[in-house]
Amino acid sequence: MTRLEGETEPSPTHSSLLIVSPLGPQTMLTAISMSAIATNGVVPAGGSYYMISRSLGPEFGGAVGICFYLGTTFAGAMYILGAIELLLIYIAPKAAIFPLEGLEGAEAEAALLNNMRVYGTILLFSMATVVFVGVKYVNKLALVFLACVILSILAVYAGVIKTGIDPPEFPVCLLGNRTLVWKTFDVCAKTIESANGTVTTQLWRMFCDSPLLNATCDKYFTANNISQIQGIPGVTSGILTENLFGTYYEKGDLIARNYMESAEDQDDPLTNANRYVLADIASYFTLLVGIYFPSVTGIMAGSNRSGDLRDAQKSIPVGTIAAITTTSFVYMSSVILFGACIEGVVLRDKFGEGVHGNLVIGTLAWPSPWVIVIGSFFSTCGAGLQSLTGAPRLMQAIAKDGIVPALRIFGHGKANGEPTWSLLLTACICEIGILIASLDAVAPILSMFFLMCYMFVNLACALQTLLRTPNWRPRFKFYHWALSFLGMSLCLTLMFLCSWYYAIIAMLIAGSIYKYIEFAGAEKEWGDGIRGLSLSAARYALMRLEEGPPHTKNWRPQLLTLVSTDSEQNIEQPRLLSLTNQLKAGKGLTIVGTALVGSYLENQEQTQRAEQALRKLMETEKVKGFCQVTVSSNLRDATSHLLQASGLGGLKHNAVLVSWPRNWRQGDEHQTWRNFVELVRETTAAHLAMLVPKNIAAFPSNGERFTEGHIDVWWIVHDGGMLMLLPFLLKQHKVWRKCKIRIFTVAQLDDNSIQMKKDLTTFLYHLRIEALVEVVEMHDSDISAYTYEKTLVMEQRSQMLKQINLTKNEREREIQSITDSSRGSIRRKNPAAVTTQLSVTEEPVAASKEEKPEEEVQLIHDNTTPTTPATPATLLTPTEGAKSPGEQVQMTWTEKCDGEPAKPPGAATPEGIKDIFNMKPEWENLNQSNVRRMHTALRLNEVIIKKSSEAKLVLLNMPGPPKNRSGDENYMEFLEVLTDGLNRVLLVRGGGREVITIYS
Amino acid sequence: MTRLEGETEPSPTHSSLLIVSPLGPQTMLTAISMSAIATNGVVPAGGSYYMISRSLGPEFGGAVGICFYLGTTFAGAMYILGAIELLLIYIAPKAAIFPLEGLEGAEAEAALLNNMRVYGTILLFSMATVVFVGVKYVNKLALVFLACVILSILAVYAGVIKTGIDPPEFPVCLLGNRTLVWKTFDVCAKTIESANGTVTTQLWRMFCDSPLLNATCDKYFTANNISQIQGIPGVTSGILTENLFGTYYEKGDLIARNYMESAEDQDDPLTNANRYVLADIASYFTLLVGIYFPSVTGIMAGSNRSGDLRDAQKSIPVGTIAAITTTSFVYMSSVILFGACIEGVVLRDKFGEGVHGNLVIGTLAWPSPWVIVIGSFFSTCGAGLQSLTGAPRLMQAIAKDGIVPALRIFGHGKANGEPTWSLLLTACICEIGILIASLDAVAPILSMFFLMCYMFVNLACALQTLLRTPNWRPRFKFYHWALSFLGMSLCLTLMFLCSWYYAIIAMLIAGSIYKYIEFAGAEKEWGDGIRGLSLSAARYALMRLEEGPPHTKNWRPQLLTLVSTDSEQNIEQPRLLSLTNQLKAGKGLTIVGTALVGSYLENQEQTQRAEQALRKLMETEKVKGFCQVTVSSNLRDATSHLLQASGLGGLKHNAVLVSWPRNWRQGDEHQTWRNFVELVRETTAAHLAMLVPKNIAAFPSNGERFTEGHIDVWWIVHDGGMLMLLPFLLKQHKVWRKCKIRIFTVAQLDDNSIQMKKDLTTFLYHLRIEALVEVVEMHDSDISAYTYEKTLVMEQRSQMLKQINLTKNEREREIQSITDSSRGSIRRKNPAAVTTQLSVTEEPVAASKEEKPEEEVQLIHDNTTPTTPATPATLLTPTEGAKSPGEQVQMTWTEKCDGEPAKPPGAATPEGIKDIFNMKPEWENLNQSNVRRMHTALRLNEVIIKKSSEAKLVLLNMPGPPKNRSGDENYMEFLEVLTDGLNRVLLVRGGGREVITIYS
Repeated sequence: MTRLEGETEPSPTHSSLLIVSPLGPQTMLTAISMSAIATNGVVPAGGSYYMISRSLGPEFGGAVGICFYLGTTFAGAMYILGAIELLLIYIAPKAAIFPLEGLEGAEAEAALLNNMRVYGTILLFSMATVVFVGVKYVNKLALVFLACVILSILAVYAGVIKTGIDPPEFPVCLLGNRTLVWKTFDVCAKTIESANGTVTTQLWRMFCDSPLLNATCDKYFTANNISQIQGIPGVTSGILTENLFGTYYEKGDLIARNYMESAEDQDDPLTNANRYVLADIASYFTLLVGIYFPSVTGIMAGSNRSGDLRDAQKSIPVGTIAAITTTSFVYMSSVILFGACIEGVVLRDKFGEGVHGNLVIGTLAWPSPWVIVIGSFFSTCGAGLQSLTGAPRLMQAIAKDGIVPALRIFGHGKANGEPTWSLLLTACICEIGILIASLDAVAPILSMFFLMCYMFVNLACALQTLLRTPNWRPRFKFYHWALSFLGMSLCLTLMFLCSWYYAIIAMLIAGSIYKYIEFAGAEKEWGDGIRGLSLSAARYALMRLEEGPPHTKNWRPQLLTLVSTDSEQNIEQPRLLSLTNQLKAGKGLTIVGTALVGSYLENQEQTQRAEQALRKLMETEKVKGFCQVTVSSNLRDATSHLLQASGLGGLKHNAVLVSWPRNWRQGDEHQTWRNFVELVRETTAAHLAMLVPKNIAAFPSNGERFTEGHIDVWWIVHDGGMLMLLPFLLKQHKVWRKCKIRIFTVAQLDDNSIQMKKDLTTFLYHLRIEALVEVVEMHDSDISAYTYEKTLVMEQRSQMLKQINLTKNEREREIQSITDSSRGSIRRKNPAAVTTQLSVTEEPVAASKEEKPEEEVQLIHDNTTPTTPATPATLLTPTEGAKSPGEQVQMTWTEKCDGEPAKPPGAATPEGIKDIFNMKPEWENLNQSNVRRMHTALRLNEVIIKKSSEAKLVLLNMPGPPKNRSGDENYMEFLEVLTDGLNRVLLVRGGGREVITIYS
Repeated sequence: MTRLEGETEPSPTHSSLLIVSPLGPQTMLTAISMSAIATNGVVPAGGSYYMISRSLGPEFGGAVGICFYLGTTFAGAMYILGAIELLLIYIAPKAAIFPLEGLEGAEAEAALLNNMRVYGTILLFSMATVVFVGVKYVNKLALVFLACVILSILAVYAGVIKTGIDPPEFPVCLLGNRTLVWKTFDVCAKTIESANGTVTTQLWRMFCDSPLLNATCDKYFTANNISQIQGIPGVTSGILTENLFGTYYEKGDLIARNYMESAEDQDDPLTNANRYVLADIASYFTLLVGIYFPSVTGIMAGSNRSGDLRDAQKSIPVGTIAAITTTSFVYMSSVILFGACIEGVVLRDKFGEGVHGNLVIGTLAWPSPWVIVIGSFFSTCGAGLQSLTGAPRLMQAIAKDGIVPALRIFGHGKANGEPTWSLLLTACICEIGILIASLDAVAPILSMFFLMCYMFVNLACALQTLLRTPNWRPRFKFYHWALSFLGMSLCLTLMFLCSWYYAIIAMLIAGSIYKYIEFAGAEKEWGDGIRGLSLSAARYALMRLEEGPPHTKNWRPQLLTLVSTDSEQNIEQPRLLSLTNQLKAGKGLTIVGTALVGSYLENQEQTQRAEQALRKLMETEKVKGFCQVTVSSNLRDATSHLLQASGLGGLKHNAVLVSWPRNWRQGDEHQTWRNFVELVRETTAAHLAMLVPKNIAAFPSNGERFTEGHIDVWWIVHDGGMLMLLPFLLKQHKVWRKCKIRIFTVAQLDDNSIQMKKDLTTFLYHLRIEALVEVVEMHDSDISAYTYEKTLVMEQRSQMLKQINLTKNEREREIQSITDSSRGSIRRKNPAAVTTQLSVTEEPVAASKEEKPEEEVQLIHDNTTPTTPATPATLLTPTEGAKSPGEQVQMTWTEKCDGEPAKPPGAATPEGIKDIFNMKPEWENLNQSNVRRMHTALRLNEVIIKKSSEAKLVLLNMPGPPKNRSGDENYMEFLEVLTDGLNRVLLVRGGGREVITIYS
């Protein structure tokens, strides 16, 4: 876990403290998050991969795990390269296959890299062999390596103390303020005063064209003096102040001493560059962070060994945090002590060219440089071995989880569990790193992978803390989501700070793996927090929605589709689900429910079978939603309960889809149609909309495509706009896309049907629904009363449509009124302000209703005088919902300028509705009125057949059921007559609230 | 909407095209989004504010609306400043109160600004008066202003054409490549050849110490020549190529001509700076974008007038898009033509100092500069008037919506609706802008506000498109969420590009307003998309959760609390909700349900009353969740339905909380306790956990705080860990925080109770639950069989706990097995691999069950031999759920290394459970066994009383109900005896699945 800096890093610059300092908190925060996760139950081997995959799911776990594996592998490559670099430069420079001697600049660099490639490959091969032969040798060597590290650290500290007493002889030769490569000369001076007088030195000959004193020399050489300074002036020299502030270099810049004067001509080109010590790479703060970062990547080492610890829950936090504290102390103190002991130019001279190629830290160390050299070599070898041991095991763990099918082979191993294939893969990837050869090119890549891993450990901890599942009970108590979040942000910042392009590349890699696992990986359920997040999100969203019913603008059909099952629990009306699917353009909720008769305890098998049948059918028909099977002692209660208890909070159904009871006249279906009429009553009471397809078997399947034809809407009563919205929703589905919408409305012969059509067209234009409008004229006296009523209503509508073009002032008030009334409750600011033209309609009716005895109301069809325009009431009833006081109606498009709700066409004030459309003539009285009603139905049916017999679908208002149950059969009969001869009919009944608005 | 550049902007630099070009797409995309929103129904006056507030809710609407208001107001200030600048510089320079003559540099600038402040205030005051007097005058003036703009544009184009034929005389005087301020000299030369020989000019005297030819002159003056060039060389001169690439200046830089040589000494300090034309502000790309941006802020003008348009849905898209196309064309062509006609140094000379203070564009225009000057002046005045008219109305709209209480006063107006207070506020804010005076300092602020507004218009469109509510049916079809998203990103990018600090300030302002409205504002429901988003999110999250039951790690208590109501629909057990609240640490779902007897249609009133009572109580007890009232013809069905149909998808309850039926022995409560036992049966069948508090009235309210005491758990059967988890959850609540958990387990005298305690302690340690463990020894023979069974189970447990310290290999396999089995179904890979020590327990029991006749099983209590350890079965039954084949059990902590589920302590294999704990001895047989059972209960009760009588709460396993209903009464009696004398008891029954795990 501890690596000595200076081993394989470029010599630290003076802002090292700045580089080291952010990594302390970052690793500490990550360690805190990791400790929390690691102490929240047993973490078997797998370390961070295990933690992330079990906290954030297989996709994140896999992506990050593979990245972490790559990071570890590249780290292995880096360790091997470091060892080779030490070997070739300090231990055995003679061993170089591509000789470095005599080469300069780029060539020397290339030769060094080639040497490293060759030796790196050899070392990798031998290490892989050791790992393959037996992991126990690796473990034994670990102790040796630890000893090496400790010895090296102690040697450095001892050396620092020694510099205070007796600084080592470590000269650096400067020309002006430039450091010279001290290789081909011996004396650091231009001339030597020898017996023969002043003699030029080897150094002179490097810069001048002849050894003579009057030779032509390099300008800079002439202008500046040669000086020899102490490379390690010692801790007491006060060099620290000079080294305190950093200087960054571009690659190839001269390493110059700060605070030293130099006679330099700006315009003069640099000559003899190869004589000077040059910066080997461009150094800037963020790059150095990236290069330095791998030194602190060891924090996971403890948790990765979780499987081998006796009490992981205690050891991981203590061990990790102690380790971070120790390393932080060692790093910080080293940076300060190096800065205090060593000359800046020496610190920046990576290969020690200015100091005869000596290892600076070696010279500093006491008693011998070899402690450092050998120690470093062995510890890098050891770290490499550890990487080569750990990485294949991590890969094996990922492969065994089976989340990435392509990696399955790497789960296999030797008989003793050693992961052979994994090791091979690791060695191959490691070899890539070695072929890149340049340490500083490899380091940022792996930094990214490690940082990403840390980021996700932090994320996992933050997420789990915020979700507060009962299972989140870490023994380690000193965590907080804010700390984890901060750690996560720090990781992300560091990633982009180090190298934004590497960061993006690393993220792209992780993203690709994520997508691959999502697409091709085995689905695993490990109880990850993402699922917990869904739960919390769903709960939160539902709670938020509970506050009130959605606004008209947010209205979506949330269907409760009621299907019935036969004795074998097969669904009797599969096409009902096709229709549900075709209506799903609204993207709302769908609940498919069925009612069973029996007892919950005894009919478990049937329940399950019914549920399975439902699910299967939903899958076939591609209906996304929930299913609900209810068992009760009787069908009536079961159906009622489905209506009452389905859905949750804001996700309650707002419309019921149920098919017309076929063959209801047959005696044995008695219960079914009684139940149906009761259901109509209950949906009305519950303010739900109702859709009743008749002849459901003839409805198209989802595969059919109508290439032409019409959807015909017979718009007789406006009860919330469902009739307008439904064809629009259907047209969003492929089946109905090519159909055209036609809207029929009924007018009397002497009506101004042209104006009526125009008005309706304008209304539809404002609703942004494309439809053909047709006004049908009927001249039957039965119908005439109805149409007369329509005319009045049309006048209101015209009035309303005119109001759309209000003056500005009025409009502003209108917005205000919408704003107010859309809160739900209609406030009657000024009851006297009901407009006059409405009173015309309203009051006589109210009078006729309340004052006239029952019989007259029943005979209302014969009455054609303008004062009793209530006929349609006997035909079609709007929602009862509008009646209840304080009820939440949102007729936003029908608002009037004084805050009063205006009348929608075909409707009246909430009070008016009650009066005009109330179902007073009871269905059960088989008297004249009932016969007339049937007659009306017949006539209307005739007209509909005439106009819409070729239509693909006919939508009709559905009248309300009679109050008295004895009229139920007449009611059913009436609906039969009304829809007779039509192929597909959808009876629609509004839910007492506006579902469509002309406002944005 | 259209403003001529060059009017009030700094002369365009050559990268103007670049500045102009990104704004084209950005405004176009915003216009598309806006068109979509504006054509989705009627948009009354209020424009963008209305659209955003109705799409994204009052918080966003208010925040953005106020920002937009500020933007419009500052724009007004900018227009007024522009007008004054034109007035003071070009129309009537003499009018300056603070004379500019003779002042130089900063002083001249300060004087100009002061003049602008004074005149600006005067103009603002007069404009505000005009607006206050009557908006109709403003509207009439608008036509005049439009005419001015068109005339100006035409004049410029005409002028450009004229330069091709006859370029105007427009000389610029250069010294070297520096432009000279042409004010105090007449001839552009150093000397003039006059009759008297060479005479020095006025210019000479500006740079030299004497008019003599041998005078000492400014070095630069001496070194460079004077040249006079054409300021407007004309469109045919090819100057465009020179102007093609931009040069940016710092404030105070010299405006120098490109591509012109200049003899300059770098080291020489700049002298006579005031003689040269200097850059008036630092110009860089992003700043210029910010300054230029207000020119394109007019795109909302059309939609803001939506109220006054006849057919807004058609006019807004057509008008806005046509306007953007026109302005883009005018801007782009102007930039190109200016670049082609005018010399670069002239373009950069903002105040025309180098050209005698002439207006460049005026000189370019044909026939007269006054067309431009007067046109510009009037059009800026007009724009200012428009801002002063529009902004107060916007403020009034916001104030009238009432979302910001502090602004309520600004909703009031004069009798004719004119917003007096708003106008006053607007004038005040405008005055601030005028006092800032510098146009270029004001422009970026308002750019930010406008950009933010556009961003939100785009966001609103993208959100609505993605949500796909049926109400989203824009007539304008050419929108797409990706376009809106792109527009949004462009807006955000532009904000930060222009000036990141202004952007952050603008966002902070908007954020503060948002928070203020959220905190103090009236709650408004306008059907905004955010609510629609909640709905979609809830639906999506629930669908996601439907896939399967949550993992043990994600298990939270999702309570269904069943309460009963009295005849007045008051809740009978309010403390049940207190307990629910105290358990809510799990943050799971809560559904509070109650069952009513009656008919849904006829008992609506009672239903509503019960629901209100529930909601009220939930509010009082701070229980966040949902309530559900079910009406049915009988109590049994209603209760059963609550159990069956509550919740939705993944948010179904997993535990039922119901209070013990008090006084169940009394005859009239017969139905209640029968229902209770049935409920126990049904929860078992539904695999739900069950919590039954006894003596609920004695439970603490949420306000109480126990300062000491214990929560005692009597851990007799392990049925999923509920008993362990519940006290942990309770301890998260303030009421129980200070209580300590004690866990009691029962051992036989000759058991190794020390080992037992140690094992249990270890187990709890791994569960991360802090509790005191106590092993109670009992020596009754009845109990002994039970404790013997325990011992065996403890052996299993020890075995299990040992497995926690598996070797690495084994562990890895174990993880795999957990992985596999946690998918839900327990796969029996190798049925023969059941470990031996388990068979010891298992097989004899199985044998005893299957082979022995019923009677022997009933007398099992007397049997103390190790082969029949089934006694506890008669006492406590684990979940029946474990029995059903293929059932999804997640006993992750009990997994064994071979993929077999190990036995949890106290339980056995799924088959074993059935055999050991089955309720064979029927409760209804009042024979010896039943008496014995009662005896056992008495004994256990004695022990519990002895140990836990002082405990604040006692948790006990709850045995399963008898299979045969005739034993129900005995069952109730047994539970009474078991819990007799204890103050607060919570009977707990697991739901057949593990709820707690030792794994991370």
